[in-house]
Amino acid sequence: MVQRYDIAIVGSGPAGLSASLNACVRKKKFIIFGNKNYSDKLIKAVKINNYLGLSGKSGVEFKNEIDKQLSLMNIVVTEEKVNTVFAMGSYFIIVSDKGTYEAKTVILATGISFEGAIDGEKEHLGRGVSYCVTCDAQLCKNKVSTIISYSSKYETEAEFLLGISSEVFYVPVYKADVKVNSKIHVIKDKVISIEGGYKAAKVQLKNESIKTDYVFILRDRISPIQLVPGLKMNENHIAVDRLMQTNIKGCFAAGDAVGKPYQYIKAAGEGNIAALSAIEYLQSLK
Amino acid sequence: MVQRYDIAIVGSGPAGLSASLNACVRKKKFIIFGNKNYSDKLIKAVKINNYLGLSGKSGVEFKNEIDKQLSLMNIVVTEEKVNTVFAMGSYFIIVSDKGTYEAKTVILATGISFEGAIDGEKEHLGRGVSYCVTCDAQLCKNKVSTIISYSSKYETEAEFLLGISSEVFYVPVYKADVKVNSKIHVIKDKVISIEGGYKAAKVQLKNESIKTDYVFILRDRISPIQLVPGLKMNENHIAVDRLMQTNIKGCFAAGDAVGKPYQYIKAAGEGNIAALSAIEYLQSLK
Ligand SMILES: Cc1cc2nc3c(=O)[nH]c(=O)nc-3n(C[C@H](O)[C@H](O)[C@H](O)COP(=O)(O)OP(=O)(O)OC[C@H]3O[C@@H](n4cnc5c(N)ncnc54)[C@H](O)[C@@H]3O)c2cc1C
Ligand SMILES: Cc1cc2nc3c(=O)[nH]c(=O)nc-3n(C[C@H](O)[C@H](O)[C@H](O)COP(=O)(O)OP(=O)(O)OC[C@H]3O[C@@H](n4cnc5c(N)ncnc54)[C@H](O)[C@@H]3O)c2cc1C
Repeated sequence: MVQRYDIAIVGSGPAGLSASLNACVRKKKFIIFGNKNYSDKLIKAVKINNYLGLSGKSGVEFKNEIDKQLSLMNIVVTEEKVNTVFAMGSYFIIVSDKGTYEAKTVILATGISFEGAIDGEKEHLGRGVSYCVTCDAQLCKNKVSTIISYSSKYETEAEFLLGISSEVFYVPVYKADVKVNSKIHVIKDKVISIEGGYKAAKVQLKNESIKTDYVFILRDRISPIQLVPGLKMNENHIAVDRLMQTNIKGCFAAGDAVGKPYQYIKAAGEGNIAALSAIEYLQSLK
Repeated sequence: MVQRYDIAIVGSGPAGLSASLNACVRKKKFIIFGNKNYSDKLIKAVKINNYLGLSGKSGVEFKNEIDKQLSLMNIVVTEEKVNTVFAMGSYFIIVSDKGTYEAKTVILATGISFEGAIDGEKEHLGRGVSYCVTCDAQLCKNKVSTIISYSSKYETEAEFLLGISSEVFYVPVYKADVKVNSKIHVIKDKVISIEGGYKAAKVQLKNESIKTDYVFILRDRISPIQLVPGLKMNENHIAVDRLMQTNIKGCFAAGDAVGKPYQYIKAAGEGNIAALSAIEYLQSLK
């Protein structure tokens, strides 16, 4: 049986980390998804001048402080990417690239992505366009699959698909060399659009096009509505009230994902609120 | 001529301090009112476990970090108590116990006070009840004045009034010994209510009552509506939107004053938002 967490935190930037501290202090059973460096936006800062209590530290020094703090509290970030969160009514099912989890509440702390959607992406979502190879690989058995990939770490996904699909195209949207099995068709070209009728059928590139049955778009971040079906947005941000509650009961959000200003301490402050709101909600379930 | 600041920050807890860092980084002309220890609520914490980047520090250690940070940035807290903020339309007049200031924007970061109002206090405000001896001393020339005092530091106010009023009563609402000129009538008794018709005329204590023309109530914190006439409240908190804007244009608020949860990093995060909102508002004035 899948164990059910009290709180699942999606994202390991300042918002998610701050939420995790509070979940820990309040002795909740929680899990935090993200990555080892916590957030690229954290480690890339040259010098942080506007975080109270952190005098002139660099982003890396901030990360080192957090390392100490988390290890003292035995908090470990689960290095998995969450692909979908399904609201089941009284709990949530969280599907990552490595497994399936259940939680009574969810805190979305995914940050904000500046990568725009591809023309035709939204229109064909769920109809030949997917963000998760693990979830949908079986659907493209003996079919032609195309991966539009924003990071070299998704090269393994292409190799995985090779054993399933009849043909695999790989379009890297990054500069590093591509190292994949030579049976995979690597096409370095600018992505223009995804086309088709009811179902996606073609990836249009600048210089050529790929006839395909399935298109996987693999980015580090996926947009919140793709992550949580039914989530209410406020333009590009997740709509929340002052207690960080989204339109879905038991689902909270914090940080850059919920709006400007994009700032560390604002994100951390909201993560704190979201965690305490989740804890209050858990209390109300009893 | 009074110099006009871009931003006046009232309160030196985490919310006000965080606002000051951002005002400083963004090179605004600002002033922050508060006290040397920043906030009692800061230095009293035994151990802080839920502030991202601050691993297991005590409140005093947090204060020491802030000392370093502020001195590096040349930020000095002005040790004055703000008694009233008048919204003048395009700017604000700020009256403290020591002087008068002008600012284009105001950030209220006053924290929350748990001292309840005295029965009859609100009803007689401005009609025989005042929070500021300096402001209203001249009104009680040759009259009977009573001070209800919540701290020994207001004993000097009683002595100041002695030279103006015909008679001065001093009711200490604290435990420490009272050391004032012997001409002042010190009455140690429980305060029940302030009574009178249109004007306050009597302070009712548990065992006796004082006939008086003026009543000064001196507390460390004054309620936000007393501080800023016309401010919209949401029950006991200052009403703000997600950008920390109050109902008064150019007036922002942050921290415990605007609502729960009462937490350091939430206060600091909101101080950051309030400062950036004030800066955006300043930009719009140009
Ligand atoms: C170079 C740079 C310098 C900056 N300097 C400052 C500064 O000096 N002061 C300041 O206040 N702000 C600064 N910022 C802004 C600040 O970095 C952001 O506001 C802050 O990091 C937002 O925190 P967050 O937790 O909301 O999101 P993020 O920091 O973006 O963290 C989100 C994390 O969640 C992960 N994630 C997202 N989706 C998923 C998923 N589905 N599954 C698993 N994990 C997921 C992401 O990979 C990421 O690691 C800077 C930003 C940059 C880029
Ligand atoms: C003992 C204790 C332990 C705590 N521990 C924790 C903890 O571990 N973690 C956590 O997150 N939170 C903790 N808190 C809560 C935390 O202290 C508050 O949420 C936080 O201090 C609120 O910050 P603030 O800036 O809004 O207000 P405050 O910290 O209350 O600061 C407001 C300041 O403004 C000054 N001020 C008010 N009015 C005026 C005026 N008119 N003129 C000039 N100055 C004025 C006040 O004197 C005060 O110094 C604790 C609180 C206490 C009492």
